[in-house]
Amino acid sequence: MAKKYVSVENLKFLLNEVFNIQEVLDTPYYAETDGEAVNMILDAATDLADRYLFPHYVEIDRTDHTFEDGKVTIHPKIQEFIKASGEAGFIGASFSYEHGGQQLPEMVTAGAGAIMSAANNGVLMFTGLTAGSAHLILSYGAEELKEKYATKMLAGQWQGTMALTEPQAGSSLSDIVSSATPTDEGHYKLKGQKIFISAGDYEGAENVVHLMLARIDGAPLGTKGISLFVVPKYREENGALVDNDVTTAGVYHKMGQKSTPAVHYIAGDNDNCHGWLVGEPNKGLSYMFQMMNEARLGVGLMGAAIASAAYYASLEYANERPQGRKISDHNAKDKPQTMIINHPDVKRMLLFQKAVVEGSFSLIMECARYADLIKTTDDEAAKKRYNTLLDLLTPVAKTFPAEYGIRSVSEGMQCLGGFGYTTDFPLETYYRDIRITSIYEGTTGIQSLDLLGRKVMGTGGKSLQLLGEEIKALAEEASTYDDLKKYVGILQEKMQELQKVTQHLGAMAMQGKHELFLADATLYMEFFSLIVIGWQWLKQATVAKKALVTGNPEGDQLKFYESKIHTMRYFYSYELPKTLGLAARLTDKDEVITVEVEKELIV
Amino acid sequence: MAKKYVSVENLKFLLNEVFNIQEVLDTPYYAETDGEAVNMILDAATDLADRYLFPHYVEIDRTDHTFEDGKVTIHPKIQEFIKASGEAGFIGASFSYEHGGQQLPEMVTAGAGAIMSAANNGVLMFTGLTAGSAHLILSYGAEELKEKYATKMLAGQWQGTMALTEPQAGSSLSDIVSSATPTDEGHYKLKGQKIFISAGDYEGAENVVHLMLARIDGAPLGTKGISLFVVPKYREENGALVDNDVTTAGVYHKMGQKSTPAVHYIAGDNDNCHGWLVGEPNKGLSYMFQMMNEARLGVGLMGAAIASAAYYASLEYANERPQGRKISDHNAKDKPQTMIINHPDVKRMLLFQKAVVEGSFSLIMECARYADLIKTTDDEAAKKRYNTLLDLLTPVAKTFPAEYGIRSVSEGMQCLGGFGYTTDFPLETYYRDIRITSIYEGTTGIQSLDLLGRKVMGTGGKSLQLLGEEIKALAEEASTYDDLKKYVGILQEKMQELQKVTQHLGAMAMQGKHELFLADATLYMEFFSLIVIGWQWLKQATVAKKALVTGNPEGDQLKFYESKIHTMRYFYSYELPKTLGLAARLTDKDEVITVEVEKELIV
Repeated sequence: MAKKYVSVENLKFLLNEVFNIQEVLDTPYYAETDGEAVNMILDAATDLADRYLFPHYVEIDRTDHTFEDGKVTIHPKIQEFIKASGEAGFIGASFSYEHGGQQLPEMVTAGAGAIMSAANNGVLMFTGLTAGSAHLILSYGAEELKEKYATKMLAGQWQGTMALTEPQAGSSLSDIVSSATPTDEGHYKLKGQKIFISAGDYEGAENVVHLMLARIDGAPLGTKGISLFVVPKYREENGALVDNDVTTAGVYHKMGQKSTPAVHYIAGDNDNCHGWLVGEPNKGLSYMFQMMNEARLGVGLMGAAIASAAYYASLEYANERPQGRKISDHNAKDKPQTMIINHPDVKRMLLFQKAVVEGSFSLIMECARYADLIKTTDDEAAKKRYNTLLDLLTPVAKTFPAEYGIRSVSEGMQCLGGFGYTTDFPLETYYRDIRITSIYEGTTGIQSLDLLGRKVMGTGGKSLQLLGEEIKALAEEASTYDDLKKYVGILQEKMQELQKVTQHLGAMAMQGKHELFLADATLYMEFFSLIVIGWQWLKQATVAKKALVTGNPEGDQLKFYESKIHTMRYFYSYELPKTLGLAARLTDKDEVITVEVEKELIV
Repeated sequence: MAKKYVSVENLKFLLNEVFNIQEVLDTPYYAETDGEAVNMILDAATDLADRYLFPHYVEIDRTDHTFEDGKVTIHPKIQEFIKASGEAGFIGASFSYEHGGQQLPEMVTAGAGAIMSAANNGVLMFTGLTAGSAHLILSYGAEELKEKYATKMLAGQWQGTMALTEPQAGSSLSDIVSSATPTDEGHYKLKGQKIFISAGDYEGAENVVHLMLARIDGAPLGTKGISLFVVPKYREENGALVDNDVTTAGVYHKMGQKSTPAVHYIAGDNDNCHGWLVGEPNKGLSYMFQMMNEARLGVGLMGAAIASAAYYASLEYANERPQGRKISDHNAKDKPQTMIINHPDVKRMLLFQKAVVEGSFSLIMECARYADLIKTTDDEAAKKRYNTLLDLLTPVAKTFPAEYGIRSVSEGMQCLGGFGYTTDFPLETYYRDIRITSIYEGTTGIQSLDLLGRKVMGTGGKSLQLLGEEIKALAEEASTYDDLKKYVGILQEKMQELQKVTQHLGAMAMQGKHELFLADATLYMEFFSLIVIGWQWLKQATVAKKALVTGNPEGDQLKFYESKIHTMRYFYSYELPKTLGLAARLTDKDEVITVEVEKELIV
């Protein structure tokens, strides 16, 4: 097993140097948190990760959950962690004091989450889902629901879930059919099936609280008739927990993330399932979007975290495994073998991973910063600006770490050659685990429709304009360093490419060619996200350059900053040029994939 | 479980229409095989696949081989297939009659292999390795070895292996240390360890015959001191099989291809392991290259075959799974859901898979055709030409189906969304299985060094010139169809790009900057292989166009040809533009990854 799975140093660099967490700590809302407290929280996360998560990562993967006699059994170490996490206040740590949280900046909880998720991504799902669903109740639920559910959830006693997907509907939420019938007693009677409910049931959980989407009898068709309910596995009656007619029908066995059971449950089979409406009727989906957006960033973070763990495992191997000779020593057969990190191809694979991991963490931290600024600013215009940027970047921060993370872990495995494919090393587990990230919380295809259709076109160009302003500000700062001017030029060029491609697609939409306009949304996502990550890399490199010029870093610190600049160079030279091919296709007039193309051509 | 895993129709199209197998069948060497016989062989392969392979694919995956008390146990269905395959004459079917084969064209055995490998790739490993190792003995071994070993191997009674890798050497064969000490009795005494020996031991195998690389005492350092030995698990003494001191020390558990145990064995621990030299001393690696080259094409075929099975599984799902509505029906909530194949993003993922699968099969068949022409031509100049082209394309035919096959299966999984990630569908098995193909028989990095260093530069431009001539001939034919002229133009443009990039890299090599020249070999491989597959797609489209123009195809046949042209359009519009970004990096002067870059910059 590798020794390192994440760079806390890098997370601190992002928090303190790149995203200046002090700026938000200085606001009244975060008055009780200072820089020292931030470090303590990261230390506490590392401690939890080292104690409960990382040592059991592979072992938990090897002991898939079981489902027998209607009971789901998970690895006992998982509950130890949930309990410890609740006790340490990590579940809902970013919630307000009023909501029972620690009122920590999102940037800090993202940092803590990065550490713990890199140590054991699947186990973090349990607490992440509890936090997200508790947040929904706290944001939109009646006082009674808050008291009854949220407190126990934040303590790690009750498990929370998000219960959206139904067998016949899949990603098409407008087609869900679970029903809710009003009663005179304040609750509704729920009936329906949900699938893929992560952490949706397990032995040892005192209770499982489903945040379930359903239609109140007579509600309109489509997404406008969806309401949100709290549907616990056990409901309280006369002070005791009694069965609430939520039956686990089965558990999906998955290729990876075996720690987390994906449950298929049936509600109301005996007509005895009570649910409590959250907020107003028919507004469920809009509430759920809060959790979905949080979860999207959470999945992005998970992708980056898994890729991080795989990166350090392959880096360690590359530094310790002798094999072959440098090309320059090719004929010196009597020389000892060199470490494989000295082979250019291995270097390339390592730099790719580092570029993906640290580029992704940077983008996620940028999003967390926007969320913090939204909470702390009183300036309505600024708040709107940050909201637009956060909306724009959320699908990107979900998708890039997933899609490029999958490739990144694959390169990590490749560094180990045949050994990477065996169960002797954790790479194969990371490889299986990370694959789910491009599916969870809306597939890459769905994220891409959201980005192009809603976030870019739907704002009439406003969001791109704001992104352009952010990049312009960075460009000005970066241009003060001669070494970085070249990269500023490249980024500006790419922004022009982005404008051009977006205009081309926009013209199609204006002409009513919606199918054609959206057909290549996934390619647009890759194109867009490469530029966004390029922005994040130039941002990191500029801060590193400043530190090199103004400070006098030595030893490991010097290497850290130099490595940042070097990895930025890698990204600009190896990854950013991929936009060329994407732009060529995105502006190609050959309508290979549209509604006009009959599916019969695919045989 | 999906119903279809391969298109036999497509294989017949390649054999008969694209690569004109009749041309080689008309030569004296293949006098006893005609078109009808070819069809019978493909039918027989389908029959074996449907009976012994496909129905047990997932079940065998779920029952990983075991290693207890020194014994390796595999799934019993595997041996049933091996026996049936031997009886049907499939092992070594392309060998000459003299060697006990059926003297079938390589194109035909490639077609049969595609069918069986798509049905169950891991099980095909057993017979493929036996065939390859028997071929080595038959090609270079003494008569006695041929009689003693090859016959039983071709009958499926004895298992063959290729035993190259050692723990301390990995891919660096020049560092192997297994030793061979001559005796007065005709055999050598072998000592050493080999790892990752696929099918290297299992209960029920009458014998396992390792084709093992080792150094004769006193042999020179490096690859020039390597000899090849036949090292059986049991040796014959006085008419009986006795233990030959080859001990299985362990079996690697792998992420995928669980059917095939990867064995770690120790030879000569009790100083009682006999081995027999194949051919001359110190020439072992040159002999082994025959098997390695065959195996490289075999791995390419395996990659394409797995991607094929995944493609048809996802195509079936996409045609049967309703979800959401067409974008044009977006607001018609009361309409029934549409099949997901009608979503552009799903269409794109299916077309990508089809383009990879059928493009790969086409390239592999092209290589098989060269091999057939080498065997059948009397014209020495032509033979040399085909040899050069086969050498050039072998690393590509290994790597493209592996690397793009991995992506292709991933897109197949993505079509199924969350279900694709579960064990309810075979996609997750294909996803795990295909990942090994970029590692087996030389990783992608090693194939890429071979392509750029040896095959392109090492021939002084000759190989590229020959490829250019092949493409020119196709361009002339394709240009007779107006619809195809556009694509001819693109392909010619790409060939110019290839020349330019190759010259740029060649100039570096001339300046002695070897490290820098080879640093981006893997990118050159992707760049090169996109163009090669583009060539194969235009070739297929031209044949399809001709059939549409000159024949009067109807129904399924019409759709088949139209789909070929459509998939070519997809490849030219979506995949070929990727060369732009690759060319940009390959000619970028920023030396991000070279020997000059200290590994300390990767932290």
